[in-house]
Amino acid sequence: MSGAATAAALDRTFQALADASRRAMIDQLALKPASVSELAKPLALGLPSVVKHLQVLKAAGLVESEKSGRVHTFRMRAGALRGVEAWLQARKRHLHAQFDRLDQLLAEDGETA
Amino acid sequence: MSGAATAAALDRTFQALADASRRAMIDQLALKPASVSELAKPLALGLPSVVKHLQVLKAAGLVESEKSGRVHTFRMRAGALRGVEAWLQARKRHLHAQFDRLDQLLAEDGETA
Repeated sequence: MSGAATAAALDRTFQALADASRRAMIDQLALKPASVSELAKPLALGLPSVVKHLQVLKAAGLVESEKSGRVHTFRMRAGALRGVEAWLQARKRHLHAQFDRLDQLLAEDGETA
Repeated sequence: MSGAATAAALDRTFQALADASRRAMIDQLALKPASVSELAKPLALGLPSVVKHLQVLKAAGLVESEKSGRVHTFRMRAGALRGVEAWLQARKRHLHAQFDRLDQLLAEDGETA
C-alpha cells in the first residue's frame, strides 16, 4: 500500500472505531461470529442501524460477512486491527524515547543542583 | 471514570486519530514538543487549520500546551495513547483466543479426515 492508501485506510479504521456501538459490535465479534440480529440484541438497536454500523466496519476492513441461506454471518477479519496496532507501536517507541530523554535531563539537572 | 465517560473519551480519541494531518502532528510531537508554526511547516497547512486540529487533539486529551510569552508550545500528554492501547490489547486477547480455537477445530478436523 502507498502512504496515501495507508493513510486513507487508517482514517477509515479510526473513524469506524470512534463509535461506542460499533466498538461493542467488535467486542462481540472478537468473541465469536454473529448474525445481524445477534448483534442487535445486546445493543438494543434496530436492525437498520446495526446494518449501517456493519457497513462502516466492513468498509474499514474490520469485519467480513458470509451468506448462508438467508442469514448473513459477520466475523472479524484476521489481522483487522493490525494497522492500528502498527501505528500505535511506532508512536509509543518515539514517546518512550522522548520521556527517557526527559528523565535523563532531570537526572543531570539533579546532579548539578 | 464510568463506563459512559470512558466510552465518550474513546470516541473523542479515535475521532481525533481519524485524520492524516492530526496523525502527522502526533508523529512530530511524539519526537519533541513544537509550536503552532513548527507544526504547520511540514504539513503545508495554514495556521488556523493547525490551531483547529490542535483543539481536537487537546479535547481528546492527546496533547497539552504551555504558554511562554507569546509562544504556545504543544507536547504529547504522558499516557496520551494509553486508552487506545488498553482497548486494543483486550480485543487482541479475544481475537487470539478465537483464532486459536479455529486452529484447534481445523486440526481436529484434519485428524478425523
